[in-house]
Amino acid sequence: MTAASPQRQLHLNLNALHSGFVPSAWRLPASDPRAFFDVQHYVRLARIAEAGKFDAIFLADNASIADQINFRPITALEPTLLLASVAAATTHIGLVATASTSYNEPYNIARRFATLDHVSGGRAGWNVVTTADAGSARNFGRAAPPEHGQRYARADEFTRLVKALWDSWEDDAFVGDKDSGRFVDTGKLQPIAHHGTFFDVQGPLNLPRSPQGHPVLFQAGGSADGRELAALHAEAVFSASQSFEESLACKREINARAEALGRGPNAVKVLPGLTTIIGATEALARQRRDELVDLIPWDYSLTRLAGTLGIPLERLSLDGQLPDNLALPANGNHTFFRATVALAQRRNLTVRALIRELAGGGGHRVVVGTPGQIADDIEHWFRHGAADGFNLMPDVLPDGLQDFVNGVVPILQRRGIFRTEYEGTTLRAHLGLQRPAGRVPAQAAA
Amino acid sequence: MTAASPQRQLHLNLNALHSGFVPSAWRLPASDPRAFFDVQHYVRLARIAEAGKFDAIFLADNASIADQINFRPITALEPTLLLASVAAATTHIGLVATASTSYNEPYNIARRFATLDHVSGGRAGWNVVTTADAGSARNFGRAAPPEHGQRYARADEFTRLVKALWDSWEDDAFVGDKDSGRFVDTGKLQPIAHHGTFFDVQGPLNLPRSPQGHPVLFQAGGSADGRELAALHAEAVFSASQSFEESLACKREINARAEALGRGPNAVKVLPGLTTIIGATEALARQRRDELVDLIPWDYSLTRLAGTLGIPLERLSLDGQLPDNLALPANGNHTFFRATVALAQRRNLTVRALIRELAGGGGHRVVVGTPGQIADDIEHWFRHGAADGFNLMPDVLPDGLQDFVNGVVPILQRRGIFRTEYEGTTLRAHLGLQRPAGRVPAQAAA
Repeated sequence: MTAASPQRQLHLNLNALHSGFVPSAWRLPASDPRAFFDVQHYVRLARIAEAGKFDAIFLADNASIADQINFRPITALEPTLLLASVAAATTHIGLVATASTSYNEPYNIARRFATLDHVSGGRAGWNVVTTADAGSARNFGRAAPPEHGQRYARADEFTRLVKALWDSWEDDAFVGDKDSGRFVDTGKLQPIAHHGTFFDVQGPLNLPRSPQGHPVLFQAGGSADGRELAALHAEAVFSASQSFEESLACKREINARAEALGRGPNAVKVLPGLTTIIGATEALARQRRDELVDLIPWDYSLTRLAGTLGIPLERLSLDGQLPDNLALPANGNHTFFRATVALAQRRNLTVRALIRELAGGGGHRVVVGTPGQIADDIEHWFRHGAADGFNLMPDVLPDGLQDFVNGVVPILQRRGIFRTEYEGTTLRAHLGLQRPAGRVPAQAAA
Repeated sequence: MTAASPQRQLHLNLNALHSGFVPSAWRLPASDPRAFFDVQHYVRLARIAEAGKFDAIFLADNASIADQINFRPITALEPTLLLASVAAATTHIGLVATASTSYNEPYNIARRFATLDHVSGGRAGWNVVTTADAGSARNFGRAAPPEHGQRYARADEFTRLVKALWDSWEDDAFVGDKDSGRFVDTGKLQPIAHHGTFFDVQGPLNLPRSPQGHPVLFQAGGSADGRELAALHAEAVFSASQSFEESLACKREINARAEALGRGPNAVKVLPGLTTIIGATEALARQRRDELVDLIPWDYSLTRLAGTLGIPLERLSLDGQLPDNLALPANGNHTFFRATVALAQRRNLTVRALIRELAGGGGHRVVVGTPGQIADDIEHWFRHGAADGFNLMPDVLPDGLQDFVNGVVPILQRRGIFRTEYEGTTLRAHLGLQRPAGRVPAQAAA
């Protein structure tokens, strides 16, 4: 079977957030509370997503212990290692990991993602982030996180450097000719000799150019600086939009920025976050949502919401509205702040109703319904330009993912907007992205 | 089958150096020149070593491109990721990776090795090194490498920090009680609040304590500072000794240092490097050695030897002796310098004969012979206290390893000094090491 039509295709990425996107997912009878540090859990998720022909599985990351760990799982296992292990148990699905530009060295990150690309046969992606929280700063010798603009300036220089390192071997630099004994054509290795604001890196990298040339670059920050970073470097963006119109505007803005930088139209795929809560009927889906939300301690949800909004817990009451005149907190998450406030205002929700609509979550959109309803929602956003695909965040893992693959994917396939088989073996192939050409060969030495 | 006797058992570690220890190994008809960046090559090696009941597979590392890459393979794929992939394809064998304390952050390294320990079910080991070469310095913002003493002072603080981070969760801090909703007992997470010479790290780590408590600590540096670092932290040492007497002295010295630090007798396993060149007869083994050496360009071997000795190439002539009054070069490798000079002087070798005896290598001992002769050599060193086991460096991979597993391992097993089955599933179990107890529970808060 091949895809029925040459039309534009939807992209599906699994956000493999430990036991699922709803904070109480680990408490369900079928859930294993230890899943968040069990490699077999992630292998299982990747295999289900691969059976569902997803483009990729994605792992977020943190460099400090999360708040409220007394209530819910955290990002624990280091994502690039975890995905190197998942790579060995899968064959096609893309493998996307977050790694911070704030507390790593470009040479090390270039090497780790090139390695992931090699060991997976061209399936690696890097979600470029900056790290804003105070806890991470204190794990890396800083009393406080760097200021927002500095973080993004460093992220830009970091990313340019990593790309240059990935290109520091020409594609045919490796020779391996047994007869002549010539192993590498060192004339096709180029130092990058970078001397910048944040970094001095000589290069070249110490491994051959990877199957994809560059692992695919993702970005997720919703601030103006974040969108500019996306426009400069990202090939796909994990966004957060509560409404169709917000997402349409987000997608247009990022791509307009990219076009202004000379990258051509529609250079950046936009994948809004989408939490799915699936039931055989809409009523059963709503019941599932309510049961999950009722298992989340309200203290947890209120504290989390106060954190997103950057206000003291005391300013929130469950049956009141959000306070007026909210302003983005220093080092706050722009994406989640904006999406959360927009949702509450647009639908005039009480705090209790807002938390329910968010399924206890941090700002991503939640759809609750039958497989057909969810497929309709996805198709609408996709066909009318508000999304190139979705960063899927099932309520409960693996069950919510299995329900999606069993129920929603076949509908999308019948409608001709989602692949029925992989047509390539690399993440670039899944996303319809070109392999970067790499560095132009050096001129003959003077 | 179980081990025939409760006597002291030999430890075997595979140094999985790309196509093999002899620099020309990649040129043999059966070799794949691309093996050094092919994960399947390393999976194959690990499976052969696991079939041979080896304790571990080990991957060295570098943070820059090696010299003379025009002639031979290099360390390319990042070892912790590569081993995370190998973990998925194996069940028992230990997985030891080098990571530098000079160009990483303790929090990141603690996390990566704890992750490797989790994904492998307790098979991780960390070879703690400092990085002295000028090329690496220039990849990490430095014009020159840090001075020797500074590197080791940083390595000691780094290692103490990593161990403290590994202990920052008590073993029973994870609760995961579905009924109460209590996920982690945060009273059993302890910040480390380290404020030192090189680092300020708050902690705790963001993942539960790993199966081994601490991944096993290895060390490989042969300088006085290196041996002191080993005495402080290492549970096993990769050494390099050309003679029985040197190895006996090395093992005694390291363990005397460890005992002086209160670690008790024989706290540190010493595993000298051992390159094996195996033939059905001694003459065939010698012929194999000579054919391999003849495939190495002399230019390569002379340049490498000059680098080890820290002298200009012009001071070496193939048919002369080594120059007199050689002194350890600045930032040189103490281990290889000492072993190489000792071998040449003890046997009064010409440069050409020295290179042949080293099989073109960097200072490790080479044994050439039948499986029985190699087993005799191993047994002699082991029974008489010059080694707890060996860091095996077969001439050619995988063939030389397969020959060792087929030919030498059964002899060692029949002699009762090497396991016939794994008795445990962790690297600590293979090495007969206790699991570190971890931090004493915090007293009730004042």
